[in-house]
Amino acid sequence: MNYQDCIREIPDFPKKGILFKDITPIFKNPEAFHNLIEDLYNKVKELDFDYIAGIEARGFLVGVPLALKMNKGFIPIRKKGKLPGEVIRAEYELEYGSNTLEMHKDAFEPGSKILIIDDLLATGGTVSASIEMIENLNGQVAGLAFILELTFLNGRERLSKFPVISLIKD
Amino acid sequence: MNYQDCIREIPDFPKKGILFKDITPIFKNPEAFHNLIEDLYNKVKELDFDYIAGIEARGFLVGVPLALKMNKGFIPIRKKGKLPGEVIRAEYELEYGSNTLEMHKDAFEPGSKILIIDDLLATGGTVSASIEMIENLNGQVAGLAFILELTFLNGRERLSKFPVISLIKD
Repeated sequence: MNYQDCIREIPDFPKKGILFKDITPIFKNPEAFHNLIEDLYNKVKELDFDYIAGIEARGFLVGVPLALKMNKGFIPIRKKGKLPGEVIRAEYELEYGSNTLEMHKDAFEPGSKILIIDDLLATGGTVSASIEMIENLNGQVAGLAFILELTFLNGRERLSKFPVISLIKD
Repeated sequence: MNYQDCIREIPDFPKKGILFKDITPIFKNPEAFHNLIEDLYNKVKELDFDYIAGIEARGFLVGVPLALKMNKGFIPIRKKGKLPGEVIRAEYELEYGSNTLEMHKDAFEPGSKILIIDDLLATGGTVSASIEMIENLNGQVAGLAFILELTFLNGRERLSKFPVISLIKD
């Protein structure tokens, strides 16, 4: 089964008026899941990078199998307080308030090239916070990859310094 | 590199007096990560199951590659408020207060056999909440698999109805 056919729409999540694209049915279907990873692989294979960094938690679901397939290391970017070692932090704005992401300070060697992966590109706030941390640790962002891109939010514009890959545009 | 050599100890995390076993260096090293998944595969391959359910978030890191390797569907068990569809909930006790896990009510077909995966078996509270949800949805728990087991906490005792697999005992 094709992974595009495994995305379902759920109204009023996370709040009234939003039609949420739920990708959990992709993961439930191994054929669709393999097909998704294969498609993502074909779109990033020309990029030059050493590590894949996945943003908690849906970024783990796609970043890990891609990293293993490509024999790259996987680096988790996590919510505040989850990583046990010394961390670097970055904040990003939400509609109300803000959120914090963290990475281990020794997550990669300085100069490493890193592909960042998340499930969704909306306004680009989460991924911008991730870029900030990687650059502060003297890493080089090699690209940004997403399953789904909400094009009407123009997240791609603020990320124009980097190759931006998305599988499905909405 | 062997994955056992990629676990590091971090003192006083998540709180003073606890020596935390950090498994993030395994994920950073693709050879160690492949080696971990291979070892896990060899220990669960005789079990009869249809799906792998991984507990957010470290359970995703190992559950997903194992599910893809075995051509099984992957089901995320998530923290409260993260899943968009209709959910079933279960609470589990923490030292202070409690936490809630959720699964989609349609995560699997009734009668399905499910292997639950998490990174750590401590007292068994998180996995017991997961078992409760799966059984309430008329699923059958086929086994429980962990990377690390803290044997002095006796989590295995309360789980004795099920096959319990752990790669490293501490």
